[in-house]
Amino acid sequence: MYELTINLKPETKTPLYEQIYGYIKEEIRRGRISSGERLPSTRALSRHLDVSRSTVELAYEQLLSEGYIESQPYRGYFVSQIEGLYRIERQTPAKTPPAGGESRKYLYDFTPNGVDLNSFPYNTWRKLARESLGEDRAELFRLGCPQGDPGLRNAISSYLHQARGVECLPEQIIVGAGNDYLMMLLCAVIGTDHKVALENPTYKQAYRLFANLSCEVCTVDMDEKGMIVEELERSGADIAFVMPSHQYPLGTVMPIRRRMDLLGWAEKKEGRYIIEDDYDSEFRYKGKPIPALQGYDRNGKVIYIGTFSKSIAPAIRMSYLVLPEPVYEIYRERCGFISSTVSRVDQMILCKFIEEGYYERHLNKMRALYRSRHDTLLAELKKLGGGLNISGENAGVHLLLHFKDGRSEEELIHLAAESGVKVYGLSGYYVDCPRDTDETVILLGYANMSEEKIREAAGLLRKAWCR
Amino acid sequence: MYELTINLKPETKTPLYEQIYGYIKEEIRRGRISSGERLPSTRALSRHLDVSRSTVELAYEQLLSEGYIESQPYRGYFVSQIEGLYRIERQTPAKTPPAGGESRKYLYDFTPNGVDLNSFPYNTWRKLARESLGEDRAELFRLGCPQGDPGLRNAISSYLHQARGVECLPEQIIVGAGNDYLMMLLCAVIGTDHKVALENPTYKQAYRLFANLSCEVCTVDMDEKGMIVEELERSGADIAFVMPSHQYPLGTVMPIRRRMDLLGWAEKKEGRYIIEDDYDSEFRYKGKPIPALQGYDRNGKVIYIGTFSKSIAPAIRMSYLVLPEPVYEIYRERCGFISSTVSRVDQMILCKFIEEGYYERHLNKMRALYRSRHDTLLAELKKLGGGLNISGENAGVHLLLHFKDGRSEEELIHLAAESGVKVYGLSGYYVDCPRDTDETVILLGYANMSEEKIREAAGLLRKAWCR
Repeated sequence: MYELTINLKPETKTPLYEQIYGYIKEEIRRGRISSGERLPSTRALSRHLDVSRSTVELAYEQLLSEGYIESQPYRGYFVSQIEGLYRIERQTPAKTPPAGGESRKYLYDFTPNGVDLNSFPYNTWRKLARESLGEDRAELFRLGCPQGDPGLRNAISSYLHQARGVECLPEQIIVGAGNDYLMMLLCAVIGTDHKVALENPTYKQAYRLFANLSCEVCTVDMDEKGMIVEELERSGADIAFVMPSHQYPLGTVMPIRRRMDLLGWAEKKEGRYIIEDDYDSEFRYKGKPIPALQGYDRNGKVIYIGTFSKSIAPAIRMSYLVLPEPVYEIYRERCGFISSTVSRVDQMILCKFIEEGYYERHLNKMRALYRSRHDTLLAELKKLGGGLNISGENAGVHLLLHFKDGRSEEELIHLAAESGVKVYGLSGYYVDCPRDTDETVILLGYANMSEEKIREAAGLLRKAWCR
Repeated sequence: MYELTINLKPETKTPLYEQIYGYIKEEIRRGRISSGERLPSTRALSRHLDVSRSTVELAYEQLLSEGYIESQPYRGYFVSQIEGLYRIERQTPAKTPPAGGESRKYLYDFTPNGVDLNSFPYNTWRKLARESLGEDRAELFRLGCPQGDPGLRNAISSYLHQARGVECLPEQIIVGAGNDYLMMLLCAVIGTDHKVALENPTYKQAYRLFANLSCEVCTVDMDEKGMIVEELERSGADIAFVMPSHQYPLGTVMPIRRRMDLLGWAEKKEGRYIIEDDYDSEFRYKGKPIPALQGYDRNGKVIYIGTFSKSIAPAIRMSYLVLPEPVYEIYRERCGFISSTVSRVDQMILCKFIEEGYYERHLNKMRALYRSRHDTLLAELKKLGGGLNISGENAGVHLLLHFKDGRSEEELIHLAAESGVKVYGLSGYYVDCPRDTDETVILLGYANMSEEKIREAAGLLRKAWCR
């Protein structure tokens, strides 16, 4: 029998039973009470320590339930076999990765991935959040439909129909927490036994995602109309990932003829699909919005993906898939049980935001705002003059500048940086080695820059680049 | 020129320009104004309708931006070519699946998956939501860290250390939208070239997920201490998915010795890992919470997953992974670029909820609430008497009733249903055919039932089952 003299501190916040439990556990862990040893009975220990018997019982029960001691009927409590099991040294902790390594400070940043967040309708959003949290409360915190709430899917479906010419029923829509997640889900649905062809250059996040999800990936070159279908055919891919309405980063709009060719490619073989990423079609400054490829698809070949990241804010984490019927069937069977990744409060806020007309108004406001930035930047860039072509205008939130004066991308970026302006090179968007070309292309995004800043930064660029 | 006589209603909430826009859009869509047709000039229409010219201009701009009309310099506005662009035949729509097929109405439902949502701290949550949406606004709508906001990860890490004995740095934590998503992410990190062993019976959602993500899966039988490690070894699995602190559905607590054996299994071969699903360890009614297996792991073998679904609400969609260093390194390399699936507003609300002490208070409240339901149910069940064993008590939100009177699960469930009480059979949790056994096990979850309802329902069960 082991004599346990525990220095109890009744004045502290730790309950007495926990002090007893903690003491014995520590003794066992340090090997000061060895395995097989019998502990004093609860009665004996309670007398010894002058505490109630139930206090000791509670401590023993805790030790029992954690496996430090075992009880033997009619015999008492014994220390379990646990020596040598506890860690002696602590593993070296994982390090925080260095924060980007970017040390230079820029006065102006023409990032092509910007979203103007100063225009986010905070008050409306807060109002809708308040409303949503106020009504039908318990219901809202129950787990919802895996595909997303029917109300939100209805709202998205009408929006898609009106604004994008997408033909779908709310049933075909799956709401998810961002494009990355939805691509992961899609891979779980269709499996990773596919070869995915992406445009070159492309949105590299998508490329990395497919590659890291164990799909085979390849790129297919583009001409001025978009992905070259003959090359796609030769690539042996069965999935084509395209951005027909506004290619990123080139800004190419795929004309109707090419779209039909692409659909024709998909129809030629069973199991071929087109993933249409319609990421920023909301922002078009001239002419009408280009209807989505999905709207032309008669044979269930187009998997459509859209997002609210660009049109509202990246951090709200809401995107949606529209699955054609054959893929929807597989989804139901293989992945229909996977819980939704968006909270129902957020879904309700967004649903109200669309249904009550705020989304449309917000889009119109943003379109006007981005358009004037677009116009300002375009006007400023034209002052650069000579030998300089601009492309990708009239839509999206960035422009491309084509230099044919022999200067390298590196040189142009460096000159801009020397003036405190950050610009981006096209080569970063190519997966395969950039094609043989005589031009250098620089991207300028304007979503995050006021017109005044655009004018100032463009002035600096003129000085930096003109010779 | 088309004469537009629009019946404007200035007294309604819809702005006049929107009424004009809506009318013309509808006329175009219905083919009553055909493509190529010229619209009246803004001046003419404003006079005709007796509204300001800018109202008409606004309506036309909207129609322009949506592509219903086109402007031709010096000529005016013309209806666009829109027929035939949209598909002619509509594909057969995907059907909504029938809603479960469950037609019987129950007065009482002992679901083991319940969460008491009436106790959700709505006011606090709303207050924190308001605060979060009020501060540092633009920042909050920018895309955050893929692993989750550092503030929230800090809060989770301290909580885990104090409450669960989990040893981790905030850097090792990845916040994600629910366990399903995090398991998908984990499969993307470690690849699907694994054999995953789950307990039998187990949480079937996890089983299906691994299976459908193309992992090889198997089950390993349990004894009263948890997964049998010798069988695990024989199974050839390299990943073990376990719930050591409170197995679902059996409620088994894995004692320290078995935990050490399990860790020993993992350490024996490189590439072996244990996934510890610590889904409801917050609810323990007797003694202290059982520390997590992760806290005993010296060799980076345990991947820990926890969730706020049970402790706060399923619909908030927030769970977290704690990756051991070797897995964290692979995550950084292969998946570190994948965007977070939780909105930053939600992350901030939860962070405040934990840091400002609300979470602890909520847990204590829920623990007390569930404990008295647990005690009530236990007392009621004891009245059933004779030959009936109860297990899984003292933790979680359900109990198991063991019948050894030869009646089948089906019979017992049916008898209960006849009295309006829904109960659940254990067999549904087995992946492989239930083991050869002489007992029938019924699960009773009490999270969603008030004490009064528990007493009423237990009374009905006594009548239904006693003979």
